[in-house]
Formats: sequence, structure tokens, C-alpha cells
Amino acid sequence: MNLDTFFKLSYGLYIVSSADGDQLNGHVSNTVFQVTAEPAKLAISTSKDNFTTDIIKKSKVFNISILEQNIDLDFLGPWGFKSGKEINKFDGVNYKLAKSGSPVLLDKTIAYFDCKVVDSMDVGSHILFIGELMDYELLNDDAIPLTYDYYRKVIKGVSPKNSPTYLGSQHEKTTTETEISTKSTEAKQIYQCVVCGFIYDPAEGDPDSGIPPGTAFEDIPEDWICPVCGVTKKDFRPVDF
Amino acid sequence: MNLDTFFKLSYGLYIVSSADGDQLNGHVSNTVFQVTAEPAKLAISTSKDNFTTDIIKKSKVFNISILEQNIDLDFLGPWGFKSGKEINKFDGVNYKLAKSGSPVLLDKTIAYFDCKVVDSMDVGSHILFIGELMDYELLNDDAIPLTYDYYRKVIKGVSPKNSPTYLGSQHEKTTTETEISTKSTEAKQIYQCVVCGFIYDPAEGDPDSGIPPGTAFEDIPEDWICPVCGVTKKDFRPVDF
Repeated sequence: MNLDTFFKLSYGLYIVSSADGDQLNGHVSNTVFQVTAEPAKLAISTSKDNFTTDIIKKSKVFNISILEQNIDLDFLGPWGFKSGKEINKFDGVNYKLAKSGSPVLLDKTIAYFDCKVVDSMDVGSHILFIGELMDYELLNDDAIPLTYDYYRKVIKGVSPKNSPTYLGSQHEKTTTETEISTKSTEAKQIYQCVVCGFIYDPAEGDPDSGIPPGTAFEDIPEDWICPVCGVTKKDFRPVDF
Repeated sequence: MNLDTFFKLSYGLYIVSSADGDQLNGHVSNTVFQVTAEPAKLAISTSKDNFTTDIIKKSKVFNISILEQNIDLDFLGPWGFKSGKEINKFDGVNYKLAKSGSPVLLDKTIAYFDCKVVDSMDVGSHILFIGELMDYELLNDDAIPLTYDYYRKVIKGVSPKNSPTYLGSQHEKTTTETEISTKSTEAKQIYQCVVCGFIYDPAEGDPDSGIPPGTAFEDIPEDWICPVCGVTKKDFRPVDF
């Protein structure tokens, strides 16, 4: 049985959000689908460990924002790999409140669906919420919706560990590992982010953040952050392949 | 509110099948997603009017076959627009029985997930089945999975009326209608298939079936069938735009 089989299922990539009073939160999700047409209802699967799940349970509303393809990991990182228990993800971003009161990210959103929870089901590690459509809006008809396939293959993103489609960090990083194993430089020690699984390879550096190829992890400035999830150097560990 | 918003949600396209003894059936579905990783569970939304739904209720198993992109409407038609109450869809096609006993279409399948039903939820017109993974197999790692977006934009397919994402035949055919309204020929009467909504426009004919542009509907041979869903001429009605 080949775990790659799971990557043959097609998904979009969304921000699922909700609000309980002033407490706003959201996270990246690929597990969104419409379950009925008349009336229109959508289902989402969210981890019991996600802060947004707690908020949806209280507020009984959620919003699904459809992200556009033209996006990068710096933007997505906090939405997938940081908890709203630690940071307010909507601080400093452009958003509005939809009819349900849930926040809608405006900068990279093509459209959104605003829902009230009409049913839910405990499916183990996750809860399936069924939302009946209260409102929806098309914000940008020209942009291409971001798919999970594009996120993995082009943006080189991985699944957070709370995702229904998480396959384990080893498998998520198979391609990167293969690339790394064929390289050899003076500064060879590879480090991995314990939060999101991002691999720092000195042979590649992190040119987007001004770290040239050939830079040993120890020589990276202390204010550098993980380009995927935004944590600092202290959340990296040396790994051997 | 713009109905095109619904087309910004991303899906794959699958055959969902099941078997109750010798009774095999399956239908095209886009509403498939994974809901948990440990253990792996998948959810499907199927119409109460679909024969496959009746079979899944009895058998408590289902199979999800991931279709490949290289496919045409002739192949898909019977799986989306014919009922298993009328025809045996697996007659004359290449298939095998998975561990659950559900049939797996082999010719255009990239991979399949074989599931036993562990829970279900009535969501109105549809039933949401939660299936725990019994088995899965990757049959063709090289082929590209068919997405709903590709099916609509490239293959020019529409949604069956039992689909959770059906928006009504008028909306599904908006583009074609616009194209048609700008044409003018001697044979002008347009006909529409009452089963799947396919539009026969004499200006375009049906060249793939040997009907040249300019052929009036009345002049099409009686053994011609709808190129989308396979019904005969008697299921077409004249329509005015």
C-alpha cells in the first residue's frame, strides 16, 4: 500500500474561520465540500485540537474563504502552523466580518461561504460540521482557486499535523529528503522545524530570507524565522538522513 | 450573489460504488473527502434518490475510484446520468471486486479506497456516509487525477441533478447558451436532453458521432444517442432561447 495514493484525492485550500464575540480565529483547511444543493449545505472536518473548532462549537457559525493560487508559504504559514491560542492571526491583516460575524480574510480570498451550523458529527480525532449557507460572495472572479495539489507540488507546502490528510512528517518530506541526500557541501548538518517539519538544508540556504546557499544553521542570524510557520531557530533540531 | 461562486470550490471526480450480493452499482461523484487521518476515514455525500445509496445502506461498504483526467463524456455519461435501476453499468466494462466486495472500475482508475461504513448522517436530500479505510491501492501513479474543474472547463461536462453541487440546468449551460445565441443558420431549432441537459444545436451538429454542423434535429438518424448521457432522441425537447 502506497501512501502517495492519498495525494490522488483532489481538494481546494481554504481558510475556515469563526468568531466568538471578540475572539476571532481561523486556520487553513482542505477538507471542505458541499453536501446538498437545496438548501445549500457545506461540510468541514476540523481537528478537536484546533482552537477554531472550540470557537465554532460555541458560536455555531463558520466561514469558508477560498484562497487564490497566487500565494506563498510566508502568507500561509501562520494560518496552518500557528495556534490562535498563541497569536491573534487577524492582527495586521485585511479582513471584514461576514453576516455570521465570522472574519473573512480579504487579501487572498476569491470568494467566501458564510454558514450556520445545523448539525455535527464526532468522527474521532475530528468533528464534521454541517453548515447551511447564510450568505456567499464572489470577491475576485479572475483569480485561480488554490488547490491542495498546487500547494504541495508548486508551493512545496506540507500538511499540519492536525489535518485530516496528514500522513506524517517523514512521508510529507519524501521529495525534499531525496533532493537533499544527493547534495554535499562543507556545511552539511540539516535542521528540521519541530512545529511544521520544514527542512533547513545549508546547501540550499533560505535565499528568500537573505540566507545564501552554503550557510550553516549556526551562522543564521537569531532573528531568522521558519519560512513556513514563523517559529524561531530554537524550534529547530538537527536531523540525520 | 453569483452562482459561479460555487465553481470556485475544488473537487476531484470519482466513481462511488457498492455491491449488495450480485447487485453492483456505482455513480460519478465529486463529493468525497478524507475526514480523519488516524484511523483514515473518508466521507461521501450521496443523494437519497441514487440507487447506489440504497445499496450502501444495505451493504455498509463503499468504494471510491479516482478517475484519470484522460477521459471523455461518452465514458462518463452512463456513470453520471443513467440509473443502475435501468441498466447494469458494469456490463461490458473491465472491473474487479475489492476486499469489501464493491466493484472497482479498472480502465480509467488511478487508485481506489475501499471503505466500511462506520457512521452516517441524514443531511436532507443526501446522506453523508463515513467510511473507515479497509484497503486502498494505487493502480497508475503516472496518470493525472480528473478534477471537477477540468471536467467542466475542458470536457464540458455538467452536474447530474442528484449531485450535491447541481445548480440547475439553466446555470450549468450558461456558456453554451451564450455561444448559441450568437449563431444563425437555416436549421435553427435547438433541442435539449431532458435527462442531462445537453444542448443539441444544429449549427454545431455532433461531429464526434458523425452528425455534421447544419443538421436539423429531425434529420439525425433515430439510433443517435445523447453524447453526454446516452439516451435516445425521444428524450429531447425543443427549447427556445
